[in-house]
Amino acid sequence: MALGRLEDQQRRDAVAAMAAALEAAADRIVAANQADLEAAAADGLPAALVARLKLDASKLAAAIDGVRQVAQLPDPVGVRQLHRELDAGLVLERLSVPLGVLGVIFEARPDAVMQIASLAIRSGNGALLKGGREASRSCAAILEALRAGLASSAVAPQALELLTSREESLGLLKLDGLVDLIIPRGSNELVRFIQDNTRIPVLGHADGICHLYVDREVDLAQAVRIAVDAKTHYPAACNAIETLLLHREAAPAFLAAALPTFAAAGVELRGDAASQALGVSGAAADADWRAEYSDLVLAVRVVESLDQALEHIGCYGSRHTDAICTTNASTAETFLRSVDSAGVYVNCSTRFADGFRYGFGAEVGISTQTLPPRGPVGLEGLVTYRYLLRGDGHIAADYGSGARRFSHRDLPL
Amino acid sequence: MALGRLEDQQRRDAVAAMAAALEAAADRIVAANQADLEAAAADGLPAALVARLKLDASKLAAAIDGVRQVAQLPDPVGVRQLHRELDAGLVLERLSVPLGVLGVIFEARPDAVMQIASLAIRSGNGALLKGGREASRSCAAILEALRAGLASSAVAPQALELLTSREESLGLLKLDGLVDLIIPRGSNELVRFIQDNTRIPVLGHADGICHLYVDREVDLAQAVRIAVDAKTHYPAACNAIETLLLHREAAPAFLAAALPTFAAAGVELRGDAASQALGVSGAAADADWRAEYSDLVLAVRVVESLDQALEHIGCYGSRHTDAICTTNASTAETFLRSVDSAGVYVNCSTRFADGFRYGFGAEVGISTQTLPPRGPVGLEGLVTYRYLLRGDGHIAADYGSGARRFSHRDLPL
Repeated sequence: MALGRLEDQQRRDAVAAMAAALEAAADRIVAANQADLEAAAADGLPAALVARLKLDASKLAAAIDGVRQVAQLPDPVGVRQLHRELDAGLVLERLSVPLGVLGVIFEARPDAVMQIASLAIRSGNGALLKGGREASRSCAAILEALRAGLASSAVAPQALELLTSREESLGLLKLDGLVDLIIPRGSNELVRFIQDNTRIPVLGHADGICHLYVDREVDLAQAVRIAVDAKTHYPAACNAIETLLLHREAAPAFLAAALPTFAAAGVELRGDAASQALGVSGAAADADWRAEYSDLVLAVRVVESLDQALEHIGCYGSRHTDAICTTNASTAETFLRSVDSAGVYVNCSTRFADGFRYGFGAEVGISTQTLPPRGPVGLEGLVTYRYLLRGDGHIAADYGSGARRFSHRDLPL
Repeated sequence: MALGRLEDQQRRDAVAAMAAALEAAADRIVAANQADLEAAAADGLPAALVARLKLDASKLAAAIDGVRQVAQLPDPVGVRQLHRELDAGLVLERLSVPLGVLGVIFEARPDAVMQIASLAIRSGNGALLKGGREASRSCAAILEALRAGLASSAVAPQALELLTSREESLGLLKLDGLVDLIIPRGSNELVRFIQDNTRIPVLGHADGICHLYVDREVDLAQAVRIAVDAKTHYPAACNAIETLLLHREAAPAFLAAALPTFAAAGVELRGDAASQALGVSGAAADADWRAEYSDLVLAVRVVESLDQALEHIGCYGSRHTDAICTTNASTAETFLRSVDSAGVYVNCSTRFADGFRYGFGAEVGISTQTLPPRGPVGLEGLVTYRYLLRGDGHIAADYGSGARRFSHRDLPL
């Protein structure tokens, strides 16, 4: 595909042209979004969906800024990951290359179109984009602008295609061999539906059930601050905690300090019997340990030991991000080595699990799959690699016969 | 899982103990294999299967050597891939960690049990292994030895489990969440069946349809040598070529030189009309361009241009390994940039697509998936990574409010 052969600067310029074209079309995009909002109101769409759908002039300006920032990110393509002489005159290289074509499926949020489209072009990939029906006018206006921008660049406008019908969206899931990666942006239900209905790799996570474990040896004031931040800073985020595990010996003092703070922040606590005995007013059922509340609700359990906390996380966690508060360095290291999650934290909030906070510049999504890419994924999630081997008549039979031998000498990257 | 917490030396020692135990049980293993072979003869198993099933004393000794070599491979676990200060006292690390549990399904070949089991333990993974029914006695004897070896090491023998029934094997495919990667070793049909019946990632490839394109500007003698090696050195291998594409201007001279050589090597050629006009005796049907012969058969097509060759490879290839023979450096670079296969080669045989030849020391398999790991996969295909974040009371709200700012300063790896 021609897009994959373009130089860094050409892809940078194309993304910059996309930003300029969005700016030029700002009035039209905001007007289209206004029409979507009116239709949503007439259809009685839930307020949360309407909020995500809304794209006013200032939100649009921020999104265009985001596109400009993507143009500035270091090129993920053409990075030499391996460079090795196999024998005199036979040199192996491993180079990062674009994946090919991305399938992007998102609900409501028209700003996601701009973000993902710019990440796709920056990394040399084409994209098939499918937005929610409720955002159809906004998405069409945005895509028109993005493609107008590409028309003035080295990238063909056809590199970005908008899918509009549910049939096209279902069809997209069947395009294995043509589409290389599906990126869903939306509810857990959307992500799970997609995972169940495609053989194409899916970058994303269905659940974010994050834990904070407060150890026996702990700086209580710090632990309370971290717990409150991890729950309340943005409760709808996947990296907010859903369950608090308290070591038996720390639980009384911790809860005495934390209960008023949680109450002041409007957090509803649901505890096991032991934590209820220490003042937690709500009761947790088994379903609470598996719940992603995405809201100001927090399950609380008192555990006997670090091992019991690890067991709880292994059983109920979703391998997203889990944290410990402890002043004991050896306990911290055991936790870091034992929790098999994309992010394992000591003495800080789970809310740091984010591509921007990790310094990736932009985030494609957060993956809770075991295989890489895992956790917050930057542009590197949109590339793969190829092995390039340059020889001068080298044949395998010469090595089988012993006529020649491999040198396997690493060369400078 | 405890295995994931062991040190490098403990895992090395465990693999060495596996090798020693195999040696001690050699007579019993060879006898068990003999019984499998007799049963296979009684059942009238095809000769090719019987050949793969056979494990005599010298083949076993070679396999044990292979296990010892795996013990010597550099540790793939605990490699720091990223080290970054996010802010004073808040430090992010990305460390390689074992995947967890591998599901390994292979036909016949009992030597594959030893190879994969040692790679699994070396990289800190457990493995559920399912061999073919025809190899059941051999596999049981090998597993007994491997577990006896582990019993004298820091790794629990339960890290390796043998599945024996077809029901268990089908059940394995459903263990998403418990099994992290499926590694099939066997026929294309086996691999495709597994890919179609599991949501667990599969490391492997169903097809190896490799091409050699002979350019207009070419060293003819070299091109003939490479074509013959790539087809005949080991025709059953997935990295053997199945289709030869000849530039119109090079085809007459190339075929004049190559036809006698191919004939002498017993290669049956199937050509399009143009190559038949130049002396290729067999006729290629459309199905031939999609065929993985795995035999001394080669499809031949005359193309008008590099572009037509690229189009053919894009249409019929399996993204495994494709090569060009050319003396024109710019043509070579266009080919390297345009062919989207795991391996893209210039002036050498496709038979180099192999983990040992790449210098990986051992090979888990060859993947034709687009996403990494791609191509020949060494031990690095059996690890993933975790982000570890160590702080001292850091909370996200301080960065949202502007009270603190990220430094994003890379530290030495």
